[in-house]
Amino acid sequence: MNPKQSGRRKFLRDGAALAGLAVGAAGTGSAQVLVPETHKVSLDDLHAYGERSRYVKSVRIGSINNPDTRKPGDRRDVGLRTPLQDSVGMITPASLHFIVSHGYEPPDIDPRRHQLMIHGMVERPLIFTVEDLRRLPSVSRFHFVECHGNSSPGAALSGPERVSPAATVQDTHGVPLSLLLKEAGAQSGASWIVAEGADPSKHSKSIPLKKALDDVLVAYGQNGEAVRPEQGFPLRLLVPGWQGINNVKWLRRIKVVSEPYMAMMETSRYPYIRLDGKSRWFENELGPKSVITRPSGGQRLPAAGFYEVTGLAWSGGAAVRRVEISDDGGRTWKDAEIQGPVAAKAHTRFVFPWNWNGDEAVLESRCTDERGDVQPTMNELAKLEGAPDVDYFRTVTLILSDFNAIQPWKVNRDGSVQNALF
Amino acid sequence: MNPKQSGRRKFLRDGAALAGLAVGAAGTGSAQVLVPETHKVSLDDLHAYGERSRYVKSVRIGSINNPDTRKPGDRRDVGLRTPLQDSVGMITPASLHFIVSHGYEPPDIDPRRHQLMIHGMVERPLIFTVEDLRRLPSVSRFHFVECHGNSSPGAALSGPERVSPAATVQDTHGVPLSLLLKEAGAQSGASWIVAEGADPSKHSKSIPLKKALDDVLVAYGQNGEAVRPEQGFPLRLLVPGWQGINNVKWLRRIKVVSEPYMAMMETSRYPYIRLDGKSRWFENELGPKSVITRPSGGQRLPAAGFYEVTGLAWSGGAAVRRVEISDDGGRTWKDAEIQGPVAAKAHTRFVFPWNWNGDEAVLESRCTDERGDVQPTMNELAKLEGAPDVDYFRTVTLILSDFNAIQPWKVNRDGSVQNALF
Repeated sequence: MNPKQSGRRKFLRDGAALAGLAVGAAGTGSAQVLVPETHKVSLDDLHAYGERSRYVKSVRIGSINNPDTRKPGDRRDVGLRTPLQDSVGMITPASLHFIVSHGYEPPDIDPRRHQLMIHGMVERPLIFTVEDLRRLPSVSRFHFVECHGNSSPGAALSGPERVSPAATVQDTHGVPLSLLLKEAGAQSGASWIVAEGADPSKHSKSIPLKKALDDVLVAYGQNGEAVRPEQGFPLRLLVPGWQGINNVKWLRRIKVVSEPYMAMMETSRYPYIRLDGKSRWFENELGPKSVITRPSGGQRLPAAGFYEVTGLAWSGGAAVRRVEISDDGGRTWKDAEIQGPVAAKAHTRFVFPWNWNGDEAVLESRCTDERGDVQPTMNELAKLEGAPDVDYFRTVTLILSDFNAIQPWKVNRDGSVQNALF
Repeated sequence: MNPKQSGRRKFLRDGAALAGLAVGAAGTGSAQVLVPETHKVSLDDLHAYGERSRYVKSVRIGSINNPDTRKPGDRRDVGLRTPLQDSVGMITPASLHFIVSHGYEPPDIDPRRHQLMIHGMVERPLIFTVEDLRRLPSVSRFHFVECHGNSSPGAALSGPERVSPAATVQDTHGVPLSLLLKEAGAQSGASWIVAEGADPSKHSKSIPLKKALDDVLVAYGQNGEAVRPEQGFPLRLLVPGWQGINNVKWLRRIKVVSEPYMAMMETSRYPYIRLDGKSRWFENELGPKSVITRPSGGQRLPAAGFYEVTGLAWSGGAAVRRVEISDDGGRTWKDAEIQGPVAAKAHTRFVFPWNWNGDEAVLESRCTDERGDVQPTMNELAKLEGAPDVDYFRTVTLILSDFNAIQPWKVNRDGSVQNALF
């Protein structure tokens, strides 16, 4: 028995401890050590919280629904993509994490007043403050978060600047949801949870209890500091490897239930309509995927010669085992080097040495995960979808779920790089 | 032979490639994909680069020499500490990375005009632009950076708010210095390098060639984006596990030489004067160390009950193998759980379940690295230093090098937590 297990058991045995937490701690304990008043120098002068260089221009780009014509009260959908083309390593800076948000700005939540309720089919309903949660056993995990519409032709920017909104919430830090659910005690017959956010739309998502007890986190930290407002401050659900829509932000309620709730985002809006007219519900796990971030669309190679080709690979069900690179549009493949550390359901950086001879080239990457699942080509994905050919993807107006086809980048003779998906 | 090695050899065989890089690429290739002009929404509206919640107050604190009496032209020393007490996981946000800076603000360097020269005892002197370096084979590594004066009693804040400036540059990304040095070709007799920064003081540091060829990086990335100005934008040296002073920021020159240069920071200022009056030069590797970040000085436990004790451990020579926790001032110890991933010469997060019974307690952590080196107590460190007793540390006015004694935090009956080093 390792010390963590021992401690958790002791923690769970002591029923009073958690009840005391839920009732007594709000407002009394502060997680922040404020700047002592004896420091007279202004915070600005002290570089209290640093900024990046003014020469670094990498920003999130994307769209906001009808920005010019939007009237007060109109829904304000935001879709902003991480500039992966500028990324290095496996960490995504919190300031550049992608945002998909339906009809609202991030709520301005005072963490001292925020609570998480766990109720429904449980033996002991529980309420936690943020500070309560910080007292509990925690874990740190590297995981990606990806919107299931990421890189779908219907959702992507057109033209050479096409970029991928996939982003990773690295070093996610929080409390295992299983710990909270075990403390609450699921009743017989409970098989799902419904997680609800504190945003104006009360975004809700049903998640099987089995997954909730497996690896889901109630996260309060990201990349070493508090989760950012646009990512769910002060609490968010982190559902490793599953479509982004599951990762409920501004988490305030988890109800244990016996069936999914058929909430808006899981029935009417997000599910993909198949060619046979049926809708696919509760398909959550994302497949193996990769993208070359450098060189990529919109970049330019100054001259022929040596380049390091680099990018990110990930899979919703397992760790990345292999990444292959082609510079001839998929006719031949060579293994890339995978840079550690490699974590399950996390972005993984790959690198590949390449000499560009100055001719046209089409660069592609292909991911294989530990289960042996291989990232499909466009043709293979069309077959999987039952589509007649790849032209089908061109005509899809709805966002296609889980579009994980191999992404080709064409390098032209003048060094310009462009999207070559079609 | 793995693909990386194969590619590197090809790269190195092609002498023209690197020469072409050094001459031809400056100003022509941009690493940034700028926002296409077709995006009409303002960047501010798009949340182009996100901010943290206004409720999160965690900041760097510390001192600036004579802030009130400083005259124009006076040296402006800056020592700002990472608020580790608020940290989670193993990543330190770039905005909160510690700063130690002697007499200057960060230079405002345009990366398109910055160059790195490698010269001295080499066969082929080379000049690289930042964009040249980004074309070369790169690596990502998790490493800590620590000022060698970190937590020395002579340097630390007094009182309960004592915090540690140690910080980690996680996911450091850049080019192995060995690659550049092999390309330049060290001449016979070369045994050291001297690295020089572009700051007004031209900070210079001598490093043995053996270390430079081992694991030193020329880093342009940190935590997934460009190195920040206060950390050396656009290029810094990253010397894993060695005293912070080696990690030359705003790197512009590396000279290969046959002996150390006895630069100011390695002879007159940073070396510690021993009790026997001798000065220790070129002692660079930092020992095993750890600190409990929560609960820690200045925090308050709201009531008796369950708490997760958590902190960071690191060692300059190896990965962390074991962390033990005591809640009785070092009489008894129990193993903490180490949270992965664990990397050599990197911060490692540990957690330990603890029930506080409401009595006075003294919490301590003790790190053991993979080589078997164990973090010393104050008494053991005094013996190592040849000091008569621990009172010696109280009287040291100079900063003591590499102070890695076990850090005790006293928990008082009212829940307040204070430094108990003396």
